[in-house]
Amino acid sequence: MHVSIIGASGYSGAELIRILLHHPRVKIQKVFANNSSGKRVDELYGQLRGKTELMYEKYSIEQVSDSDLVFIALPSGEAMHVVPPLLKSRKRVIDLGGDFRLKDINAYQKYYKREHVSAEVVDCAAYGLPEWNKPQIKTAQLVANPGCYATGAILPLIPAVKDDVVEEKGIVISSLSGVSGAGRSATVELSFSEVNESVKAYKVAEHQHTPEIESGISDYSSRMVKVTFVPHLLPMTRGIYSSIYARLKRNIDHEELSSLYRKYYEGASFIRFDSSGIPEIKNVNYTNYCDIGFRIDERNRTLILLSVIDNLIKGAAGQAVQNMNIMLGFNETEGLL
Amino acid sequence: MHVSIIGASGYSGAELIRILLHHPRVKIQKVFANNSSGKRVDELYGQLRGKTELMYEKYSIEQVSDSDLVFIALPSGEAMHVVPPLLKSRKRVIDLGGDFRLKDINAYQKYYKREHVSAEVVDCAAYGLPEWNKPQIKTAQLVANPGCYATGAILPLIPAVKDDVVEEKGIVISSLSGVSGAGRSATVELSFSEVNESVKAYKVAEHQHTPEIESGISDYSSRMVKVTFVPHLLPMTRGIYSSIYARLKRNIDHEELSSLYRKYYEGASFIRFDSSGIPEIKNVNYTNYCDIGFRIDERNRTLILLSVIDNLIKGAAGQAVQNMNIMLGFNETEGLL
Amino acid sequence: MHVSIIGASGYSGAELIRILLHHPRVKIQKVFANNSSGKRVDELYGQLRGKTELMYEKYSIEQVSDSDLVFIALPSGEAMHVVPPLLKSRKRVIDLGGDFRLKDINAYQKYYKREHVSAEVVDCAAYGLPEWNKPQIKTAQLVANPGCYATGAILPLIPAVKDDVVEEKGIVISSLSGVSGAGRSATVELSFSEVNESVKAYKVAEHQHTPEIESGISDYSSRMVKVTFVPHLLPMTRGIYSSIYARLKRNIDHEELSSLYRKYYEGASFIRFDSSGIPEIKNVNYTNYCDIGFRIDERNRTLILLSVIDNLIKGAAGQAVQNMNIMLGFNETEGLL
Amino acid sequence: MHVSIIGASGYSGAELIRILLHHPRVKIQKVFANNSSGKRVDELYGQLRGKTELMYEKYSIEQVSDSDLVFIALPSGEAMHVVPPLLKSRKRVIDLGGDFRLKDINAYQKYYKREHVSAEVVDCAAYGLPEWNKPQIKTAQLVANPGCYATGAILPLIPAVKDDVVEEKGIVISSLSGVSGAGRSATVELSFSEVNESVKAYKVAEHQHTPEIESGISDYSSRMVKVTFVPHLLPMTRGIYSSIYARLKRNIDHEELSSLYRKYYEGASFIRFDSSGIPEIKNVNYTNYCDIGFRIDERNRTLILLSVIDNLIKGAAGQAVQNMNIMLGFNETEGLL
Repeated sequence: MHVSIIGASGYSGAELIRILLHHPRVKIQKVFANNSSGKRVDELYGQLRGKTELMYEKYSIEQVSDSDLVFIALPSGEAMHVVPPLLKSRKRVIDLGGDFRLKDINAYQKYYKREHVSAEVVDCAAYGLPEWNKPQIKTAQLVANPGCYATGAILPLIPAVKDDVVEEKGIVISSLSGVSGAGRSATVELSFSEVNESVKAYKVAEHQHTPEIESGISDYSSRMVKVTFVPHLLPMTRGIYSSIYARLKRNIDHEELSSLYRKYYEGASFIRFDSSGIPEIKNVNYTNYCDIGFRIDERNRTLILLSVIDNLIKGAAGQAVQNMNIMLGFNETEGLL
Repeated sequence: MHVSIIGASGYSGAELIRILLHHPRVKIQKVFANNSSGKRVDELYGQLRGKTELMYEKYSIEQVSDSDLVFIALPSGEAMHVVPPLLKSRKRVIDLGGDFRLKDINAYQKYYKREHVSAEVVDCAAYGLPEWNKPQIKTAQLVANPGCYATGAILPLIPAVKDDVVEEKGIVISSLSGVSGAGRSATVELSFSEVNESVKAYKVAEHQHTPEIESGISDYSSRMVKVTFVPHLLPMTRGIYSSIYARLKRNIDHEELSSLYRKYYEGASFIRFDSSGIPEIKNVNYTNYCDIGFRIDERNRTLILLSVIDNLIKGAAGQAVQNMNIMLGFNETEGLL
Repeated sequence: MHVSIIGASGYSGAELIRILLHHPRVKIQKVFANNSSGKRVDELYGQLRGKTELMYEKYSIEQVSDSDLVFIALPSGEAMHVVPPLLKSRKRVIDLGGDFRLKDINAYQKYYKREHVSAEVVDCAAYGLPEWNKPQIKTAQLVANPGCYATGAILPLIPAVKDDVVEEKGIVISSLSGVSGAGRSATVELSFSEVNESVKAYKVAEHQHTPEIESGISDYSSRMVKVTFVPHLLPMTRGIYSSIYARLKRNIDHEELSSLYRKYYEGASFIRFDSSGIPEIKNVNYTNYCDIGFRIDERNRTLILLSVIDNLIKGAAGQAVQNMNIMLGFNETEGLL
Repeated sequence: MHVSIIGASGYSGAELIRILLHHPRVKIQKVFANNSSGKRVDELYGQLRGKTELMYEKYSIEQVSDSDLVFIALPSGEAMHVVPPLLKSRKRVIDLGGDFRLKDINAYQKYYKREHVSAEVVDCAAYGLPEWNKPQIKTAQLVANPGCYATGAILPLIPAVKDDVVEEKGIVISSLSGVSGAGRSATVELSFSEVNESVKAYKVAEHQHTPEIESGISDYSSRMVKVTFVPHLLPMTRGIYSSIYARLKRNIDHEELSSLYRKYYEGASFIRFDSSGIPEIKNVNYTNYCDIGFRIDERNRTLILLSVIDNLIKGAAGQAVQNMNIMLGFNETEGLL
């Protein structure tokens, strides 16, 4: 099978290249990056020297005519221009950006602060969260790969919401992200001297993953939730820590809650639920795992869920490959362990 | 005036030394550290070379007979043995540890997991939060310097609680700390290779600062609060970021809330309230400031308070010197700007 | 094929486990760590959860009777007690420590500051530098895996010395190491708060890898060299940067020198020589590559060689697996790309 | 006394503001930064909130007519346009950039890669290295503040060269710098994700501080030296570590060398020479100290000198204030301890 990547010069794109080069069932055909066209991939990413001769090219739809599947790792707002022609030419597409994750176009326009030019396509997109949406992903022509924060928040929350253990309103999600989540960009704000030895919250309660978290949980739990989501920028390169606070609806003890999570995640290849441990980012970095732990604060009848992912892998490129595996009928874990 | 420091070989003790060496009104008489006695201070802390000839000594009460004030920077659990004799000999004392912060001895025993051997002394201790307790501190013989997390959580919360803007129950405090908060200790868990490029929550909803935060807020707001407090260890040396989530009791807009905070903190030398900005740790590191910001999440009627302090300064040594300044009748900011 | 690891609880041991779990041709039989016996491997290394059920055991020679090859990742000074009985029972052994790297027992005793109790075994050990010693490694019963700094210094230096381009005396090696090189240990010196935002040289011109670097280069270049070696500890977890300065013996230009290096390293699977680029640690972290670059300082007739490796992989566990592959007749790169 | 700063929005300029705000003898009159004019200083540097109301302005020479002294913290290449008119209007000037450090205009043009438009002014500039050039600085109208790497290399080398202990040729300087040395700039190369967990050498043997180091040492030792200088970028914000290797000309032991350094640096307020210790960056960060240590490698008759400075303080703003103190007749340490 042949795949191509549009927007392959950013961190997610490069991580996709790295994973796919080791994948036993697919071959990367072309990688596109308009600003870096003509450069070798290993010129931008020295890690890949000796592993690939690929060069970045300027994108045009003719170039992907032989590809069985196309990944899009463009900044949000660009994929919506690129996807419709691809779908028309019957390509299967996985978009790592935010353009097709929200069924609610108004929410998209409010949080992403731009018009959506391909609203008609949104409905046919499957949300690429394999643990909860595998059947749809399998047959979808277009998969909207979840956001990094959204992945880290939705996976731990669904079981508790679905089984009616916590209140749907007033859920608090305090997330901590490494700097690579902000992409490969030239700004003073992301320079080492500004980020090191510091922390700051940003887009407080107005981050674009907020509606995605809410719809993601609601879709798979059949309960409408509302969340207060605050992301923070941390002095590390990779990883997202999500600390989630939800009110308990009823009495439930540690053991019962553990069983509930085991019930839903026992067979999930990339979820490591640990009823006693506390997740740590270093345990998932450079992997496609989402580690989940929890504590019950009896004094305040509050459930504290904790999760960690590598923002570039389970939060982006790894999950995209997991989706590809499902779409192409491979083993879900192929190339990811 | 002469001061001495018991337990001066840890990070808080060293920071105290550094600040006091620059203080125009006091002189450090003696520094005690049983395990390092005989060593020069600058042998442990090379930063101080050329600034002091002080040597660590073994502590005995006779040694501080000429000191006007004694700082204690021992690990919690040790000060309660040292303080009563000091009080008897009429010394004024500032304890940077946790032994005298909680009036509720049961809470102390539950959270600190040891018996309290000087319960009778607790009642005479003034809680050393100058912004809210200056009159008591002024005349106290014993001041219990607040915990680092407690300082970062109490200062932003009091105004909103006191003016009945937020619900007293279900307050969530998600705090992020640099590693120096764990002290100068030899453990694998705190080694660079374990902490770097990672994050972990710890003592989830059972950290010993929990009852201190609750009593601190309740004492100065006259409303009983209950909080869910989760600290996280981050890959940085200094600083505490506190992200606080509380439900609004009534409609209040950005401007009214700003006024409320300005009302309480306008004259406070070390509080920098910024109605529009978002606090960042690097702005307060190496200073005695607590920066406070906020956002209102209208969708969820939730107030998000954000604060930052340097855990070793406003969270320990700096606040201790601020307390000393008040006790000894100096200008509150002396030696701290 | 079955392998076992003695001393598997440190960072090199854990990295060995991680690599071998993905190796298609061998199975880990047992892992030994006296202090952690009874614990699961993934209790110490959460990264490995879901990948292995291995438990640490107390070591005794009977336990490895079915192993085809035994890795030793003990601190230097311990392997010399363990190896002779293993050799007697006809096991093939790869020692990742320093006990069998130096043929000169006096040098061992001087630099490692202890008696060598198995001097008679030293001569039968093959130095495990595959790029230069493959034939010996292939048939050796005992392989002494090179030190991390030694690997990073020897590989770039051999070609220039061997072809008589640089003076053998007065070579300067200034190396920079991540903290994991110091092992998994509980000391104040390695704690995050001490290492972060700092650098220090250590064991200046007396590090135990000095004689190893000298004999390593001399053995494969047939010229006796003497080096001044200064290691530095840096605020990062992984990686070694070696900046090497040697006087040119004769006029040589960039192109000729490039050819020389290409001649020797063209076929080397894990050497990436780049005649124009400057090595960066991030390009080799989590890989078995050694990247080499150079510049000629014409003004001072000085050759500047630059190399980078991941200290735990090409500097330890990865190179050990490379050696195992050679010893067991596998493809040299098996499990390492 | 009144001072102004031209180019006050970069890191060195901001550090100057911070230091001068605490200086007891001078007042900052105006701060200029064309790109940030109209912004408050504390908008860019939140650390300074509550400490100053200063706003950045567009520069014109009329604006500094009342200033007793003008600091220039512009990028190299800009000061040479600004300085001549200032000198003509009889201002005293301290330039923190590289335009007036090299008497050899050809060297300037070669290393800085541009024409020098104010060559005639260069000769009247005093090199601002107070430990060796105080008399000239005292009376100079224009002081060229040394480069950060140059300061860290020249100070440890002068005594050994001057007393003819080491060979003048073939001196190797391997320096390690924090990222703030590269200034406050928006580039991918300096972004956290690129710098963290990595190291790279840059401008290998062609950095513009090379001729400054050579002339600096030669001027004060009366011996012409030639150095191979290689800077490296490290994952930390502040600090420069310089590891210097020079061949011994004659036998000299540890004690004699210690005496030699003590002889020259005993009275130097900001040099902490330690005959037995090894310098560490954390000991000098946020101070104006240069710590110096050394080891003799007897095996190779090589002197290893080690030094550390804070690149923004002794390597820039602190040394500039030290120079100002000397020029204005204040105590050299005023505002710097």
